[in-house]
Amino acid sequence: MSLRPLGMEPPPERELLCIFGTGDLGRSLGQRLLQTGYRVVYGSRRPHSCGPLPPGAQVMSHTEAAQLAAVVIVCVHREHYDFMEEVAPQLKGKVLVDVSNNSKKGLYPESNAEFLQSLIPAASVVKAFNTVSAWSLQNGPSDAHRQVFLCGDKAEAKQAVRELATRLGLSVLDRGSLSAAREVEDFPLQLFPEWRLPLCIATGLTAFFFFYLLIRDVIYAYVEQDKDISFRIMVSLANKVFPIVSLIMLSLCYLPGVMAAILQLYRGTKYRRFPDWLDHWMLCRKQLGLLALGFAFLHVLYTLLIPIRYYVRYKVTAHTVISKQTAVFDTTSAWRTDSYFSVGILGFALYVLLGITSLPSVSNALSWREFSFVQSKLGHLTLLLCTLHTYLYGWNKFLRPSTYKWCTPPGYMLCLVVPSVVLVLKLLMVLPCVDRSLGRIRQGWERTGPEGEGTKPLMA
Amino acid sequence: MSLRPLGMEPPPERELLCIFGTGDLGRSLGQRLLQTGYRVVYGSRRPHSCGPLPPGAQVMSHTEAAQLAAVVIVCVHREHYDFMEEVAPQLKGKVLVDVSNNSKKGLYPESNAEFLQSLIPAASVVKAFNTVSAWSLQNGPSDAHRQVFLCGDKAEAKQAVRELATRLGLSVLDRGSLSAAREVEDFPLQLFPEWRLPLCIATGLTAFFFFYLLIRDVIYAYVEQDKDISFRIMVSLANKVFPIVSLIMLSLCYLPGVMAAILQLYRGTKYRRFPDWLDHWMLCRKQLGLLALGFAFLHVLYTLLIPIRYYVRYKVTAHTVISKQTAVFDTTSAWRTDSYFSVGILGFALYVLLGITSLPSVSNALSWREFSFVQSKLGHLTLLLCTLHTYLYGWNKFLRPSTYKWCTPPGYMLCLVVPSVVLVLKLLMVLPCVDRSLGRIRQGWERTGPEGEGTKPLMA
Amino acid sequence: MSLRPLGMEPPPERELLCIFGTGDLGRSLGQRLLQTGYRVVYGSRRPHSCGPLPPGAQVMSHTEAAQLAAVVIVCVHREHYDFMEEVAPQLKGKVLVDVSNNSKKGLYPESNAEFLQSLIPAASVVKAFNTVSAWSLQNGPSDAHRQVFLCGDKAEAKQAVRELATRLGLSVLDRGSLSAAREVEDFPLQLFPEWRLPLCIATGLTAFFFFYLLIRDVIYAYVEQDKDISFRIMVSLANKVFPIVSLIMLSLCYLPGVMAAILQLYRGTKYRRFPDWLDHWMLCRKQLGLLALGFAFLHVLYTLLIPIRYYVRYKVTAHTVISKQTAVFDTTSAWRTDSYFSVGILGFALYVLLGITSLPSVSNALSWREFSFVQSKLGHLTLLLCTLHTYLYGWNKFLRPSTYKWCTPPGYMLCLVVPSVVLVLKLLMVLPCVDRSLGRIRQGWERTGPEGEGTKPLMA
Repeated sequence: MSLRPLGMEPPPERELLCIFGTGDLGRSLGQRLLQTGYRVVYGSRRPHSCGPLPPGAQVMSHTEAAQLAAVVIVCVHREHYDFMEEVAPQLKGKVLVDVSNNSKKGLYPESNAEFLQSLIPAASVVKAFNTVSAWSLQNGPSDAHRQVFLCGDKAEAKQAVRELATRLGLSVLDRGSLSAAREVEDFPLQLFPEWRLPLCIATGLTAFFFFYLLIRDVIYAYVEQDKDISFRIMVSLANKVFPIVSLIMLSLCYLPGVMAAILQLYRGTKYRRFPDWLDHWMLCRKQLGLLALGFAFLHVLYTLLIPIRYYVRYKVTAHTVISKQTAVFDTTSAWRTDSYFSVGILGFALYVLLGITSLPSVSNALSWREFSFVQSKLGHLTLLLCTLHTYLYGWNKFLRPSTYKWCTPPGYMLCLVVPSVVLVLKLLMVLPCVDRSLGRIRQGWERTGPEGEGTKPLMA
Repeated sequence: MSLRPLGMEPPPERELLCIFGTGDLGRSLGQRLLQTGYRVVYGSRRPHSCGPLPPGAQVMSHTEAAQLAAVVIVCVHREHYDFMEEVAPQLKGKVLVDVSNNSKKGLYPESNAEFLQSLIPAASVVKAFNTVSAWSLQNGPSDAHRQVFLCGDKAEAKQAVRELATRLGLSVLDRGSLSAAREVEDFPLQLFPEWRLPLCIATGLTAFFFFYLLIRDVIYAYVEQDKDISFRIMVSLANKVFPIVSLIMLSLCYLPGVMAAILQLYRGTKYRRFPDWLDHWMLCRKQLGLLALGFAFLHVLYTLLIPIRYYVRYKVTAHTVISKQTAVFDTTSAWRTDSYFSVGILGFALYVLLGITSLPSVSNALSWREFSFVQSKLGHLTLLLCTLHTYLYGWNKFLRPSTYKWCTPPGYMLCLVVPSVVLVLKLLMVLPCVDRSLGRIRQGWERTGPEGEGTKPLMA
Repeated sequence: MSLRPLGMEPPPERELLCIFGTGDLGRSLGQRLLQTGYRVVYGSRRPHSCGPLPPGAQVMSHTEAAQLAAVVIVCVHREHYDFMEEVAPQLKGKVLVDVSNNSKKGLYPESNAEFLQSLIPAASVVKAFNTVSAWSLQNGPSDAHRQVFLCGDKAEAKQAVRELATRLGLSVLDRGSLSAAREVEDFPLQLFPEWRLPLCIATGLTAFFFFYLLIRDVIYAYVEQDKDISFRIMVSLANKVFPIVSLIMLSLCYLPGVMAAILQLYRGTKYRRFPDWLDHWMLCRKQLGLLALGFAFLHVLYTLLIPIRYYVRYKVTAHTVISKQTAVFDTTSAWRTDSYFSVGILGFALYVLLGITSLPSVSNALSWREFSFVQSKLGHLTLLLCTLHTYLYGWNKFLRPSTYKWCTPPGYMLCLVVPSVVLVLKLLMVLPCVDRSLGRIRQGWERTGPEGEGTKPLMA
């Protein structure tokens, strides 16, 4: 590193900042500040044995360091905030930047930043930088976490920190007063909150269909035919469960949109809020869709694997030997199975396309109309192809009594219910008369305005 | 949401903004502005029945609201701009931010922003925020559309809106005077303009090769051998069309680059513009390549599916029974087919790599040299491997007369023409003498400068 | 383009900028500046024959142009800097922006910007914009390279250029004084520096295992059994080498983390630096993992291809005919092979998930806890599944003497060493007692502090 961030004679206009704490974050932040042209002084418990600091930085006691700068960045864990009270006189009127995070949610009654403010009431505490890691500061923001959330009660203090962050090449988002600090502090601790519900649904569906098919296939064969086909659990059964869950989850992506449209048509306005469960459901459509794609991906791999399985190789050999002359080529079967595969592949390709367009960088590059075209038009086409794929799989088995072992329908029939309903409802939605009404409602038209205009009911 | 964006006593320095309209966008924008520390007042047609507004915002009539703020954000559809004329006196000298979009292109003779300016000539209209959706404002900019295009005639008005947008965590791009508003307004309405040409080419090629191969395979078999193999349309035929279209489109990616180089060598300068069609072609290379990757992906899936097809399983069984002793293992065939598969897989893997590097977030992380290395060197290697894969497929069938049914060459021969030409030309380009000339031209050297230096022709 | 960036009467506050050079970058930069509302004047060697310039820009001689503006952007190759000395008097006290790049590293003893500063000592040289291409300036920053590195010795000069860049919608990162210019200039020339080591490791491992398996399989069969199975090189051998290299490289991803933890436990502090080789290794884990994913992808394709190979089809046919009655279905084999495949597929799916989360745009959208959950927890699960997959492949062959041809173990046994070690060590790390000690060390606790607290050794 040939960086010489400070010249021989530092020009007087370079601002001096104080950093409390010489841990990873303190050092990385100091190094970046020095590179950006600030002067940096560290405040430390033991100024003489605090390990290697970035070249160009000074280190002294907390009290001395605090006196020199107008902005003090506190890179210390909350457990060690007690020393702050001694420094309080020197911190009067200064901007205190709290960068701390907790190791768990709900450890303390109040947020770290509010606690710090209560310790030093005479300073202006600003919460910032807690979403930025030492690692990303060191390695430059080329592909690092750049978003900084800011909150605080004093506008000038926030402005000072905002400028600081902007100079560091970070992107600042103001989250309001210091009472928002709790939320800001919880942000780095969150673990896929928006994935929870979709993951629960996926797990529930997988478990249900696994046991359902286990009973219908393996246990039925054992009880009724006294055959042990338990080895089929690993691949055959999995390859039945995965496509079923995938198709149901894909249709669950598009069901709330249809329900919202029906609700808007029924109410005749778009200005009334949806019920909470529907709002919540609509917000996790992307996650539902991506999980569905994951299951579809597994289904494709399991299907392509079929011919190299020991069981299948054995069956081919055995079958060949036994049924020498019996095989007669059936063109209808060839058409049906080939269509079945072809529709499935095209559906999967569209599925992958939908997945790619929901990558943040891709969806950000799309205009709103492009995004809705892909997610709505192509999405429904994908659902149509995948549903068709499943119907072609069933073909004429729907009416054959032997299909219904122990009076239960096979898994693929169960999984066709939701997608079929979604597709039929969507078809109704795109009928010209319904589509027109919906379009007007979505542009702000209301059936029963306060002046009584437009009171004609739209649907029976 | 425990956000309390406004403290008990709002400090006087918080700026007051006025929003006309209480629709989705108006509410979301207001909420974000309140969070960021602004004060917000809504202007509404019916201030007493305008539904739920963000906590902390006031609502009053348009006239009253307009008087209070220096900046008025107009979140109203253009159809309802008529009320603006009544408010005109209060808007004199103020900054009017037009955020509107139309539902279609070309609905009105002039842009909404220019129309608004003509209604209120005494205000400074700035077009902004029309690419930002209510949804992304509500959910924070973590993966939202952040780009704001700005245009307007008054520099100070633009500066005020620029600051506003920057504070909201958005990224601002100035597009010039208000006459650019039409372009800015059309942006959210565009539907993959740069994908049009590549999609047309792909559709055209697919249709041509589909009918060509339908005639050569299915109809030929029906007419000459009286066999119905129409079921092969779904998989076998598709799996011939897709790789052909993929290879041609991949080579069409690299053809314009070679043509541009030849043109530069011929002209002896890089400072003359390419013909428009070549410019247009070069700008859609990425889209051509990604479509080609899509077709290659389908080809891989269709190929891997082969052994589980009913037709193939039948053939294996039948063939086994008939040709008991005749099968003799041919090492050359084993070498050829394995090389054919291996080269194809490696080509596809590179193809996928090229696709991944054209994701916006990946290509942005690459330096210019890295990007051109991947797209040029690896791209040509991919083309070479895929072409080789096709040659290995043909092998010794090129000279066999029975290949040419009804005197037409098979599809894979047709599709080899363009890639072979591109590869041969590219090979000529990397010859040391040509490469050196080209390098000098691209560094700004001109064969026939005004002073007459460097007049030696570079190519015959 | 209906852009009319300059109105009829340009308001006086529009700043005038001077650009030296009318090449691609000069023109594109000028066009963008004009759109953003600046006035632009070009300085050119031949003001009357310099080709098409953006509408609205003026062109004059270097001397005349330099006099008009306070900021001069030098879009000229370093080789032509000689003319600058003539213009030196006009450049006194002005901000000179050096945007140049070199075609190779180490061409000149000093950076271009420092050279320019030495030519015109009375001006303030700022290095900037060299990472931005003409292409991305023309096409807007929607998915372009936006990052601008800035360095220079004068703070006010840097501030002026920073504002300029921000207005252009670019994101600025200050890299310190002008002595950092060399690094900034080398940035666009770098060619995957962080991929070098992982690529070397991958190449080395591939070469070693290729020759090792060539000897054990092909040459052994030729020498001992006098059979020519050289055709197996293309697919069978490749499909042995790829998974081996993939598994080893995946475990090399997780080995340094385990080693670092052991080192921290041994030292009892996190404040001592790791050895350089370990630091270097830890920084290229992502690249190691992505290469491993690439090899795994190839392994999957090669495996799924097996049944359509000529050799396999031949073997199936031949085997069928010969072993008519001998085949007995073995349930254990069915369980084993199906588990082997199933575990492999699940491992690969997790592998792909890891790959997707390391896309810059995805990893930026994750909180720190989410990222470490995916990369650490899911990463080790992937390693576990892939190792299990390999053990299931080996099954009972570990103890069979015939496996050890020429006294060498098969490739898959060799490749199990590193992952097994990593997994065992990781298992030790998550034991409650070790985990607790490690957690305390990582929160800043030190075993032998200066005051002597916490001196209990943690591990024997």
